[in-house]
Formats: sequence, structure tokens, C-alpha cells
Amino acid sequence: MKYCIGVDVGGTSIKMGLFTVEGNILDKWEIETRRANQGEAILPDIAASLKEKIEEKQLLQTEIKGIGIGIPAPVTGDGIVKNTANLGWGYKEVNRELRELTGLEVQAGNDANLAALGEMWLGAGKGQKNMIMVTLGTGVGGGAILDGRALVGANGAAAEIGHICVNYHETKKCGCGKTGCLEQYASATGIARLARMRLAWDETPSVLRGKKIDAKAVFDALKEGDAVAEEIVEQFGAYLGHGLANAAIIVDPAVIVIGGGVSKAGDIMIPYIKKYFLEKAFFANRETEFMIAKLDNDAGICGAAKLIIDAVTGK
Amino acid sequence: MKYCIGVDVGGTSIKMGLFTVEGNILDKWEIETRRANQGEAILPDIAASLKEKIEEKQLLQTEIKGIGIGIPAPVTGDGIVKNTANLGWGYKEVNRELRELTGLEVQAGNDANLAALGEMWLGAGKGQKNMIMVTLGTGVGGGAILDGRALVGANGAAAEIGHICVNYHETKKCGCGKTGCLEQYASATGIARLARMRLAWDETPSVLRGKKIDAKAVFDALKEGDAVAEEIVEQFGAYLGHGLANAAIIVDPAVIVIGGGVSKAGDIMIPYIKKYFLEKAFFANRETEFMIAKLDNDAGICGAAKLIIDAVTGK
Repeated sequence: MKYCIGVDVGGTSIKMGLFTVEGNILDKWEIETRRANQGEAILPDIAASLKEKIEEKQLLQTEIKGIGIGIPAPVTGDGIVKNTANLGWGYKEVNRELRELTGLEVQAGNDANLAALGEMWLGAGKGQKNMIMVTLGTGVGGGAILDGRALVGANGAAAEIGHICVNYHETKKCGCGKTGCLEQYASATGIARLARMRLAWDETPSVLRGKKIDAKAVFDALKEGDAVAEEIVEQFGAYLGHGLANAAIIVDPAVIVIGGGVSKAGDIMIPYIKKYFLEKAFFANRETEFMIAKLDNDAGICGAAKLIIDAVTGK
Repeated sequence: MKYCIGVDVGGTSIKMGLFTVEGNILDKWEIETRRANQGEAILPDIAASLKEKIEEKQLLQTEIKGIGIGIPAPVTGDGIVKNTANLGWGYKEVNRELRELTGLEVQAGNDANLAALGEMWLGAGKGQKNMIMVTLGTGVGGGAILDGRALVGANGAAAEIGHICVNYHETKKCGCGKTGCLEQYASATGIARLARMRLAWDETPSVLRGKKIDAKAVFDALKEGDAVAEEIVEQFGAYLGHGLANAAIIVDPAVIVIGGGVSKAGDIMIPYIKKYFLEKAFFANRETEFMIAKLDNDAGICGAAKLIIDAVTGK
């Protein structure tokens, strides 16, 4: 069996990729996520699109190892989703339903965990077996790889790094209902909030004043040498570094990969994170390497493809 | 192969157990830990004691699956120890050396991780596949089981729960060199420190005044209804509950098992821990069960026996 398929279901689009089992992407494409009627069309749409692609490429069903699929929600080891914030699904047996629709083996997983698996297989974590990935986007997602396998957990909710508490004195609530979550400081929206608070604090001149404040503006200002932007990034680094140190105490990773839209600012952010990571890291974790993610939006389909390869080969 | 052996190496004694592969303890015994000369006698002493036991029981070498061995230090997946605080060892290839001494298969692991594995196999976590165990003794140790396997990590230092930061404002240093570690508040010594600080704070009457202050005295006073003791246990519960909530965000366990000397106080401590756990737990982890450990000092040998069974059967 030479091929496998990776699917990454998002709230607005579904990404799909056809891979060789060695990790070459032969083709990738997207379809719309139709969320109406509790998202009942999502899995049939995926099955129809895959059928079309398999016919177009003139592949035999028997040449395909199966389908890995990432879902933006907790997913149990059996591929069961209990609820989703963005797809309309309630309880859904993803493995079973998509298997029945396609006749192929299916393994579902959490999208952030699969992005981590993808970066381990083909990206920044290539060759590593113990890795944390943190995804800094609108929120903060996380995945952890231990001994080459993505953590799943009892409820499919392992490695939810964005909700580690890094500030026991916060009064504002996170989207999850708790206070002091890493996501409140290290997401794109969190960085913009840190920036607005710093700018309101005093009148120190800054290129940020009068501009639209977002994470990109803050890192652009840092690159220009703006002192206020540096203070903001220092704060971001402290929360993220401390949160990752606590995650590393549990996972003991060789490498921490930083992905998501915010990570496009690049390597300039790493020293600010690492400084505070080392402040709270256990001695055994002090050599942990930091890297920026490499696969961008393809991490999810890559990780999904790897998941089905491992599931079918019983790894 | 009907039998396996579990060994738990401590700083003063080495515990050993002969098990059936189904998990029945047929015999257990102890020998002294001879730490002189960089602990060079430790592995030969274990081999000699096992040889004697195997002859005494008239077992055949071929009936024995192998030896699992817990070490009070980080241990890599290959059974390599780089350093130990209590045994005198520097670099040591435990799997290889003990295999050469005994002719049996050997797998070494970290003692706290193996205690967790033991509680999962035969104790409080029986039947669970996702579990955290925290051991409240002189220090705070930890182990995590994910999908039935003990976490190891890149440096053999996974699940070092005692060194999660739970107080970013602490100024006193932990034994590990950092500040604000869970161990500073939830170990036996940590609880005694919280008690001394509370008693020095004001003059509120308490049965603890004038007594030798240790963790047992605090929990005994709580059982008598002492209000100051309750404040101390409340603080202990806050630090431990918050630390465990952060650990659970990474591991997503079905159950958290509390072991070690401090846990002998029993179920009375659980509501104090759970209250603060729920304050910082991610929504997916709110059903996590709390249990007191059941195997006491046997957890280590049980987990070691399970480790070698899994290693030999390639689980």
C-alpha cells in the first residue's frame, strides 16, 4: 500500500492531501465546510471529494492505507467526538461513519495534536520522538508527542497547553471560563491586549501609537527597535516561557515547536520565550531546543496522514 | 513464561518481588543498598539475591519473563541513568549491566513513574489507562500513564510534577534551585513549613501550638476540627489542586492517584485538593476522579514487574 490520505477539518474549509507512505505530498486541495444542519454534510462531502480524487488519479482502493482526519475538538482514541464548538456536530463516531462512507480505514484525532505529529514527521521536529508544539493563533492550541505518538488522553483533550494557568492573579476570564490561561497572553488577541495595556500605562513614545494594534504590528515594531514593543514582547515571552516550562515538566520534550500565525514573526521571538522558560524549567529540561514550525497550514494534513499510517501498522 | 521480577531501588534499601504475570505477588523481600564506591555493589547485590531466590523457589530461568527495575533518577527508554542523587552512580547502563549479571531481560524505569504504573496495574488505578500519580513524601514525585504506558520523555524526566511552578511570587528556593515549585508546599516538609508560617502569623488558638509540627500533626488536628489546621490544609489543597490542574491539562487523566507518606491521612484531604483543582481545571478534565493510593510501599515493585511484562511483550 503506497498511499494515504490526510484530512484537516476547519470551521470554514476542509484541507485534504494525498501522500505516499514515505511522506511525499502528491496533491492537496480544499473544500468548503458546510456546517448547516449540525454539520451533517461534512463527512459525506469529504467522502465524495476523496472518491473524485481517487478516480482522477486512477488509484486502486487497495493501494490506499487509509484516511487520517483532524477535528477541531477533543477526539477519543476510538475516534469519537462528543461535541464541537465550530462544526455543529454533537456526538459523532468519526472513524465508523467515514469508514462506512469510503470503505477505507479511518483514524480521527484532535487537530492540534495532529499538527504536532505533522511537524514531527515532516517539519521542524523531524527525527524527534519527544516534542511539544504550541500553536499561537486566535487562541493557543497545543499538541505533545511522546515516544513518537501524539498524546490523546482519557477525553481526547491532552496537551491543551493554552489553558495552563500562568497568572494566578488574573481577574479577566478566558474563553474557556477560567482565569489566567496562557491563551489570554500568548494568542494573537492576547498579545494585542498586552500591547493596549502597556500603551495605556504611560506616555512613552512608540511607533505603535496611533496604529492598529495586533500581534504583527508589535513584532514589526520590535524589529524596528521600538522599546515599548520590546517590553510587550518581554511580557509575552514571560507568560509563554513559564507556561511551556510547566508543560515540559510533564512531557520532557527534546524540542518545542512554535507554530500558528503569530509564529510568522520568526526566530526573533525565541530568545524572549527561552529566557523565561529557563527561569522555570526543571534541570533535566534545560537543553530543550526551540524551533519555529515549518509546515504552516500543511501541518494538519501531514499529521493526519501520519496518524493513519501508525494506526494501520499498529505502532 | 509464568513469572517476572520487580525491583525498587531506594537510597537505604532495595525491595524485590516475585510475581506471576497475572499480577500475584508470590514473595517479596529486601536487601540493603550498599552505596560505597559509587554504588558499584548495587547491581551485583541484586543479581546475587535474585539467584538465591530463584534457586530457593526451584524456578527455571526460562520460566521468568525478566526483571523490571525502578531507579530514583531519570532513566531513558534504553535504561540509561546519567546521574543519581542517592545511589552514588554516575552514568550507568542499567538494562545492559543487570542483563549481563543475570542472563534475564531487564528494563529500568524511573521509580515514581513505576509507582504510577504499579497503582494502575494492581492498585487504585486498576483498569485505568490514563492516570496521574503524585507521591507526597519528603519531596513530591510524580508519574503519568498515558494509554496504559508510563511516560518517559526525552531525558527520562517526564511527569516531574513536584517541580511545576504554582507560585510565581515565591522567593525561597526549592531543592531543585527554582522558586515556587509544588514540592515547596505539598511535600511533608512543605506542609510543615505552611503550618509554621500560619502559626507565626497571629495568635489564634490551635491544638498545634506547642507541638512538634509535621504533616501528620496537621492532618490529625484537622480531624479534631482545629480551625487553624483547616486553614493550613486549605493552603496545601490550593497549591496541590492548582498544580494538578495544570498537569491534567497536559495528560488528560481519568484518575489522579495520591500516594506517599502524606497520603496516609486518607480521604479527608481529597475535598481540599479537588476544590482548587476544579478552579483551574480545563472543562474536559472536570470529571477526573481523585483516589488515595492503595499499594503503599509495594507500588514500586508492582510497577517494575508490569514494566518488564510490557517490554517483553512489546506493548
